[in-house]
Amino acid sequence: MRRSVSADLDFSTGEGATQVALLIAVARAPGLEITDELTVTKDGDPVEVVEIGAPHHGVMHLVEFDAATVRGAEVRIRYRATIDGDPASALALAPAPSTSDLLTYLRPSRYAESDELLPTARREFRGLSGLALLDAVAAWVRERLFYVPGSSRVTDGAVSTMLLGQGVCRDYAHLVVALLRAMDTPARLTAVYAPGLSPMDFHAVAEAWVAGHWHVVDATGLAPRESLVRIATGRDAADTAFLSSYGGGLRMGPQRVLATVAGDLPVDEPSAAVRLP
Amino acid sequence: MRRSVSADLDFSTGEGATQVALLIAVARAPGLEITDELTVTKDGDPVEVVEIGAPHHGVMHLVEFDAATVRGAEVRIRYRATIDGDPASALALAPAPSTSDLLTYLRPSRYAESDELLPTARREFRGLSGLALLDAVAAWVRERLFYVPGSSRVTDGAVSTMLLGQGVCRDYAHLVVALLRAMDTPARLTAVYAPGLSPMDFHAVAEAWVAGHWHVVDATGLAPRESLVRIATGRDAADTAFLSSYGGGLRMGPQRVLATVAGDLPVDEPSAAVRLP
Amino acid sequence: MRRSVSADLDFSTGEGATQVALLIAVARAPGLEITDELTVTKDGDPVEVVEIGAPHHGVMHLVEFDAATVRGAEVRIRYRATIDGDPASALALAPAPSTSDLLTYLRPSRYAESDELLPTARREFRGLSGLALLDAVAAWVRERLFYVPGSSRVTDGAVSTMLLGQGVCRDYAHLVVALLRAMDTPARLTAVYAPGLSPMDFHAVAEAWVAGHWHVVDATGLAPRESLVRIATGRDAADTAFLSSYGGGLRMGPQRVLATVAGDLPVDEPSAAVRLP
Amino acid sequence: MRRSVSADLDFSTGEGATQVALLIAVARAPGLEITDELTVTKDGDPVEVVEIGAPHHGVMHLVEFDAATVRGAEVRIRYRATIDGDPASALALAPAPSTSDLLTYLRPSRYAESDELLPTARREFRGLSGLALLDAVAAWVRERLFYVPGSSRVTDGAVSTMLLGQGVCRDYAHLVVALLRAMDTPARLTAVYAPGLSPMDFHAVAEAWVAGHWHVVDATGLAPRESLVRIATGRDAADTAFLSSYGGGLRMGPQRVLATVAGDLPVDEPSAAVRLP
Repeated sequence: MRRSVSADLDFSTGEGATQVALLIAVARAPGLEITDELTVTKDGDPVEVVEIGAPHHGVMHLVEFDAATVRGAEVRIRYRATIDGDPASALALAPAPSTSDLLTYLRPSRYAESDELLPTARREFRGLSGLALLDAVAAWVRERLFYVPGSSRVTDGAVSTMLLGQGVCRDYAHLVVALLRAMDTPARLTAVYAPGLSPMDFHAVAEAWVAGHWHVVDATGLAPRESLVRIATGRDAADTAFLSSYGGGLRMGPQRVLATVAGDLPVDEPSAAVRLP
Repeated sequence: MRRSVSADLDFSTGEGATQVALLIAVARAPGLEITDELTVTKDGDPVEVVEIGAPHHGVMHLVEFDAATVRGAEVRIRYRATIDGDPASALALAPAPSTSDLLTYLRPSRYAESDELLPTARREFRGLSGLALLDAVAAWVRERLFYVPGSSRVTDGAVSTMLLGQGVCRDYAHLVVALLRAMDTPARLTAVYAPGLSPMDFHAVAEAWVAGHWHVVDATGLAPRESLVRIATGRDAADTAFLSSYGGGLRMGPQRVLATVAGDLPVDEPSAAVRLP
Repeated sequence: MRRSVSADLDFSTGEGATQVALLIAVARAPGLEITDELTVTKDGDPVEVVEIGAPHHGVMHLVEFDAATVRGAEVRIRYRATIDGDPASALALAPAPSTSDLLTYLRPSRYAESDELLPTARREFRGLSGLALLDAVAAWVRERLFYVPGSSRVTDGAVSTMLLGQGVCRDYAHLVVALLRAMDTPARLTAVYAPGLSPMDFHAVAEAWVAGHWHVVDATGLAPRESLVRIATGRDAADTAFLSSYGGGLRMGPQRVLATVAGDLPVDEPSAAVRLP
Repeated sequence: MRRSVSADLDFSTGEGATQVALLIAVARAPGLEITDELTVTKDGDPVEVVEIGAPHHGVMHLVEFDAATVRGAEVRIRYRATIDGDPASALALAPAPSTSDLLTYLRPSRYAESDELLPTARREFRGLSGLALLDAVAAWVRERLFYVPGSSRVTDGAVSTMLLGQGVCRDYAHLVVALLRAMDTPARLTAVYAPGLSPMDFHAVAEAWVAGHWHVVDATGLAPRESLVRIATGRDAADTAFLSSYGGGLRMGPQRVLATVAGDLPVDEPSAAVRLP
């Protein structure tokens, strides 16, 4: 399965020194062959990019704009990647998570407040575990939420989402993650490229640790899970945002994400367990 | 400086298989000589304990009670440690944090919602940075909060604390951490043994990354910072709770914490920068 | 049906002028014969009490302590009442509410945030109305909450209660009220004396406007509805608190509430519609 | 001073019986001469309107669409009014509020959570009262908020507004109201037509009871207070929304509000106390 993805992000700089952290590169899962390229320019000139590692084979790119940067400089980020290889065989090469990792993903986090949702989860999913729990949580979330672009605030977490009854992909995933953790099931947020997603954009899904593996849970059902391409993995959107900035502010411009799979898009079999390398 | 600490925790088991994670052991900071012992018994019989690593030299102990465990079994946890060595010289051995670590501690977390406190922090601490920022934040928090044992819920974070105007040590620390992150300063929560604390208990402080080092910020001012003994380090109380349980519930019994320093308790010089190995 | 009720409240004064508003007297429902007496003393001396009207035949008593009042003066409030007459026949004399009143009780209020619970209510009670809606809401709330004395904060509303999964009578009533309003059914909070309640205390129930009458909804099921004695009626606990103070603070002492019915306590028939004069 | 105001609201009906309550008519303050006209049409045909009283001389208009109403019927609401008379002399005719009214406006309400803001208000405004308190609160709110159209949710109250650091007129007013009540000063929300407001729309201000009168507090400073025209008065936006619907949903169309004063717009003297008939 060959997949091709790209992300174009534009922004203009604000005042003062600013550090920008990008999580847009495809994670280097063992067993997949990834060819990619990132270029960043400021007013047309290339900008130095530092690459550092992120959890679960992720790659973060850091760009610094010093205090001398003119306000309003136009920054263009262009990322292109091709991913070759069979995700299913790559799975066999995934290292086992440490106990410490699994415990981390049981804890409440900023946007997945499993502690506040404990009474709700315990009542709604009593007696369920394993893949049956995953299915039940995904169905519960799907049934309760409307997918409404622009409906959520960046500070909204799973509790707000449940109350509002609407959200976007990250909100669906946060609610799934929070409910699973409240049921003592390690769960995390995963930012992905999603061939077939419409409208095309960055996508977010949950991963839950069940029966010795991380399984993808996507309550939105908006894209086939099998062809998802992992970018970043973490506790919630605080860890997986495609762009974070520190110091001065940015003014975001247009962004464009593409993700395709060579040949036919896989058909998602809702009852099938899907894992992501 | 020789310090001696101990923690006695009692609980009785609930129904069903339960996993208990303890964060009560002293962190193995290079340069300190730590002698400690942990015993766990269930109805008088020894229980197997698994030790795993936690961030910043921390040690987590895991105990499992399988489904066959009788409900109401009495579990006793006894921890004793002696810490020898000069904290100041140990500091020289502390490994430098990775960029990735520092970025992690800039992110909002469950109980340190720096994203929600951004407008507040930006307005209150405009123009401040470095140690001056740390002092200003500590003073601001101290001025706004009353220390009221039992006043906070386990689900309360920094926003609740600020609104309530009261809390305990973890609440003070969460508010400090959240405000610092909102000012683009990496900050984390640190659980400690605190000689001189009154009433004696586990204690929590903030650590902030300034000028190339982690500095202790304790807005409660309840114990000298110099003789604090690090236990666990993380984003907030979700990462540093002394006891977390998964699966069945526990009924907590009495707990007793002790921490002393041989000789005189150091005097805390509020204006001095203090670091913890 | 003769009912006898009493309330003893003690407090000591704080610093500065303080106004205390009491809502402990039995509402003067037409058709009931009410004999009552209120005495308030400060350090043993009688204190002047001003009586003003409150909605739905309620009676509020105001007591002022001027700035010259010594801090720590002991205030004792003693209220006794006997209520004679047949509630059922008194109902015929109840004035019809105005349209304006009914619209008021459709609005979200401080502790009954029907606007935030709208998506939840619409999903859970779709298609229900009238007495069937009342029964469904009461059952839903009863099933989701544990009655846990001391579990709620005075600032908690229906949303918090639903998430916490526990509360006391006022929390049960707030959640009922909020859900009903979200279903376009006027609902209000009613403070009552409740013969048969155990442990005895002030009690709170919801009243919902259905089929041309206000019907009592008590999701706690802790006391027979038929012998409840109305005290105060309003949007939520903000309107019906038995004691509110303005200005200086008070230090509340012990309080004691009694409510009995002559002869046998009525048996509450859960499926019966009950109204309160 | 002659003022002319108008409001045009369009919406299309949803499914099922719907009741619409309008608060757009000018309040009938004694001493002002008000000439107004309201017409409501559905697909061009006149619709019956019922007029009922609202607090403080307000007028509410009710329109019912029964279940037989076709979905998507176009409803047009047209209101025109001319207000003659001298507001200053009209003030002398304003009836004194009852103690009960004043107590009501001391209580926390849905969007003015004075109970949650008590610690904040007590700390920030310690020792202030009367007109000095009003000025201090208005300045504090103005300094902390940015006026950002579209920034708030309809469920946001004063606490959210304070944290977000931004809002629109109703948010400014809610925060003022909540802080004043927390300082034991009766405060309420008042919906007004506001000549000079830009961009023109419905406006909301706070009124605070100080020195025996209701004084206008407008932390936005966006329109001269003297020429404001009272529409509705209540605890918060729950009581003063210009349009509320119950039952089926509506799809709001364009709305247009106008308010002018004959001759020159008065100049607002920030330090002057302004009252509204």
